[in-house]
Amino acid sequence: MADSSHPESLIDLIEDLRKLPGVGRKTATRYAYWLVSQDQTYLTTLGKKIHAIKKAVKICRICGNKTEQEVCGICQNAERNIGQLCIVEQAEDILQFEKTGVYQGKYHVLGGVVDPLKKVSLQELNIDTLPDRIVSEEVTEIILALNPTIQGDATNSALQEYFRDQDLTVTKLGRGISMGSTLEYVDTTTLQEALNSRR
Amino acid sequence: MADSSHPESLIDLIEDLRKLPGVGRKTATRYAYWLVSQDQTYLTTLGKKIHAIKKAVKICRICGNKTEQEVCGICQNAERNIGQLCIVEQAEDILQFEKTGVYQGKYHVLGGVVDPLKKVSLQELNIDTLPDRIVSEEVTEIILALNPTIQGDATNSALQEYFRDQDLTVTKLGRGISMGSTLEYVDTTTLQEALNSRR
Repeated sequence: MADSSHPESLIDLIEDLRKLPGVGRKTATRYAYWLVSQDQTYLTTLGKKIHAIKKAVKICRICGNKTEQEVCGICQNAERNIGQLCIVEQAEDILQFEKTGVYQGKYHVLGGVVDPLKKVSLQELNIDTLPDRIVSEEVTEIILALNPTIQGDATNSALQEYFRDQDLTVTKLGRGISMGSTLEYVDTTTLQEALNSRR
Repeated sequence: MADSSHPESLIDLIEDLRKLPGVGRKTATRYAYWLVSQDQTYLTTLGKKIHAIKKAVKICRICGNKTEQEVCGICQNAERNIGQLCIVEQAEDILQFEKTGVYQGKYHVLGGVVDPLKKVSLQELNIDTLPDRIVSEEVTEIILALNPTIQGDATNSALQEYFRDQDLTVTKLGRGISMGSTLEYVDTTTLQEALNSRR
């Protein structure tokens, strides 16, 4: 940006802030200027938290959820061992399901989706612990809760193939979620309906 | 948030990110989860930049603009000494004017607005260097470019009173900016029109 009124260090910060999801130059600029006008205490705290967040947050070694322990709160909760396993793309999606209060089973985070264009297959996702989980947690139903996108559909197909010869009911989220939307922004009611009408 | 699936350190980061302008819980959560999945290098860099931004960015001792030197690029540029001084609320507003390419004079940043409700008067804003500037920069025209809000109007009135007995043309930004909007988000064309039709 050949803008003489823009200090170099601000341009630099703006470039980094623009990487945040959904943030363009205008929003990043707004954030950067706002940050300059804040207390140093807040800036130091926020800076430290951002630096430390990756180390503070672990991945649950059972389900792939984000946690501060080895195993997340949901996996530790024996009451949730009801034979249901809900497979999601990312840990954020678990939050959405938890908000509905409808689902009482456990989760499994793939950490990505099957994407034929980018040559990502199911084998590259977090599925290694699945066979063990199905046995030890006595899973009888798999709920596929991928985003209603082309990649989500490809992942569904790959998982249906993966579970084909096993004695499992494999369901998909039902009516309620419209093509093209992402789970992260679906409202709670729609998600409840989708859970209830899974097929 | 009594959400067992939300690690404490993420809740903590989300609370801090929510303070960013225009950011609610949903966006803050999205940012936080996205940050966790980034490279540690990026997180460390961003954290350091946020921590250091306040020290890196100085306030120009002449006009109040944000700069990395004692005096900002615009104040250093002698070609911009054309007798015009554009008074704005905040340094961000200078960027907007610079983008239009129409204005060739200098700026003065008040760093706030007159607000009768909060008992902020003109004397508490950055006006101490104004008398000296008017003499040394041979200013003949003052352009009042405050936001079209109640506080902006109060600031305009206070400045018109302040300049009353001086041999100066005092103009205000003209047609083009609609009541209730803020300069930061006005498009370039509207701002060009407003500059051209100042009165």
